[in-house]
Amino acid sequence: MSKSKKATIKDIANVLNISPAAVSKALHNDSRISEKTKKAVRQVAKNLNYQPNHLASALRIGKSHLVGLIVPRTNSNFFSSVIQNIEEVLNKEGYNIIITQSNESYKKECDNIDTLLFTQVDGIIASMANETVDLDYYEKIKSKGIPLILFDRGENDLNVDYIGINDYDSSHMIVEHLVNQGCKRIAHIGGFKHTRIYNNRIRGYIDALKKHNLPLDDELLLESNLTTLDGRAKMHQLLHLENRPDAVYVAGDYAALGALQVLNEQQIKMPEDIALVGFGDEPFTSMVTPSITSINQHSAEIGKRAALTFLEHAKKDTITQTLNKQILDAELVVRESSARKK
Amino acid sequence: MSKSKKATIKDIANVLNISPAAVSKALHNDSRISEKTKKAVRQVAKNLNYQPNHLASALRIGKSHLVGLIVPRTNSNFFSSVIQNIEEVLNKEGYNIIITQSNESYKKECDNIDTLLFTQVDGIIASMANETVDLDYYEKIKSKGIPLILFDRGENDLNVDYIGINDYDSSHMIVEHLVNQGCKRIAHIGGFKHTRIYNNRIRGYIDALKKHNLPLDDELLLESNLTTLDGRAKMHQLLHLENRPDAVYVAGDYAALGALQVLNEQQIKMPEDIALVGFGDEPFTSMVTPSITSINQHSAEIGKRAALTFLEHAKKDTITQTLNKQILDAELVVRESSARKK
Repeated sequence: MSKSKKATIKDIANVLNISPAAVSKALHNDSRISEKTKKAVRQVAKNLNYQPNHLASALRIGKSHLVGLIVPRTNSNFFSSVIQNIEEVLNKEGYNIIITQSNESYKKECDNIDTLLFTQVDGIIASMANETVDLDYYEKIKSKGIPLILFDRGENDLNVDYIGINDYDSSHMIVEHLVNQGCKRIAHIGGFKHTRIYNNRIRGYIDALKKHNLPLDDELLLESNLTTLDGRAKMHQLLHLENRPDAVYVAGDYAALGALQVLNEQQIKMPEDIALVGFGDEPFTSMVTPSITSINQHSAEIGKRAALTFLEHAKKDTITQTLNKQILDAELVVRESSARKK
Repeated sequence: MSKSKKATIKDIANVLNISPAAVSKALHNDSRISEKTKKAVRQVAKNLNYQPNHLASALRIGKSHLVGLIVPRTNSNFFSSVIQNIEEVLNKEGYNIIITQSNESYKKECDNIDTLLFTQVDGIIASMANETVDLDYYEKIKSKGIPLILFDRGENDLNVDYIGINDYDSSHMIVEHLVNQGCKRIAHIGGFKHTRIYNNRIRGYIDALKKHNLPLDDELLLESNLTTLDGRAKMHQLLHLENRPDAVYVAGDYAALGALQVLNEQQIKMPEDIALVGFGDEPFTSMVTPSITSINQHSAEIGKRAALTFLEHAKKDTITQTLNKQILDAELVVRESSARKK
């Protein structure tokens, strides 16, 4: 099959010996064109396999009915569940979504923003890469005058709509739970401090220790990229301490899985020797042995709210960037890895 | 912030009192324009926050350097690994990818094709929804003259490039393995017969039974949508048979997980009472108890080959749709759920 030349309005006009403007009017069912001509135009268009250029038409009317998504990755249950729920709400309203992933790279995220702006999306819903510190590229979206909605990993400084859970309070819930199980030396494998959600979890951890009169020990607070591999490395680091922790709270389930693997390999008993808590309630937390206590982040609700927030903006003609932060309460799901008291 | 009106080439021309054509030439660094004018144009463009319309430029030159992906879903390790590998290869060559998911819906898949064609992608790499039987929409891509590459779930009838594993042989490997473990009544929870890959697995299962002189029993061959929920339902159905199977080969890991849950709940021992085999080698197969024997589909290799096949087409000016089927040998990963002989 050789690449076929696309039929244009001009081609149809030539066949019928009428003006391209008349063809265009006929195709748009303009009342100034006779029914007979319209019928002829449609027939020739069909014969020539003419396909209207929706893109050119989007450029004219300025609406693509596309919403762009940027996520760190799609293969986490949290992000794929958020995507699923955004999609369900937006599809019903006639929007299609296109997904891009940053793979936690800032450069990739910038490319994704360019790609989405290029495809003329009507709005962007995003969760930031671990690496992202510079917000200039996000300002670019705002300057285009299309709605930007952040979820989970966002930044106060951008002053846009945001939907997430209460990370600070979640840390309090976890520490309180561990204290109730009799734990006294609680370590935290946290995310990057520059990312707001992880910073909030770290602050919550520190304040909760104070509240329960537990000393804060610097060697028990580690910064991690929260991959399974790094969860393993950080767990090894904690086990090499002279004064080992009796509980480890990991800021992400994938890193908690790495920690669990190391504890199982070294036959350290959970929850008796070390109690383990993750974050995110990924499905595997209930599949592994022992099952991992974790925080449910209400991904479905976050996805729905992100979509509804976009729709609200889309209805208005001007974007009133009234700062709208929707913070949901998270839920602690207690499982075998931390339940000392049954 | 009110939606700012976009500055155009005409606006720049008005400010400088020169023609729009001159502005356009200046912005494209045309040698017919003086350096002084170019500098002035750039300054005014900056002051007005002028942003060139890449989309209009893509329409002109007919290349977006975007590749569109259509997958049934992103939250399976197989598909996300294929995506990851396509992305790695294409990013290096200056292409960005946009992802759409069909959620196994044919209607959604058609919408995705429209969306991707709308965004002027230079090519589409796709794996079909469970529901898809009608191929007209895929013909639409071919008629646009851009490369279409299918992987995993494809159709012979479309006559386009395809990359996948040898499903027929995989079934032979599984049945042979189960026979070697002493199994004599092997059931198959298969996918939809109309999907080629599942049909090949079913054919392989039937032929392998014949080869090993095992009788084919209709009540042991079930058709499923292969979700975890349906895996549970089909396992219940098999357990209600008067003459139960001693082995179950499930055509997908998520459904195999459902089957495993039911067997664990009913305290039926794996592999002693029933040996279980899945398909896809999802990471959870090694996390659950017992770990599940499964087929590794070489997702990384499939992703790389799909990307390279696209690049080959992109280099040529005409699409020579020489039928190019790349079929990889799969690999059986034996785990606890089926290993009777250690």
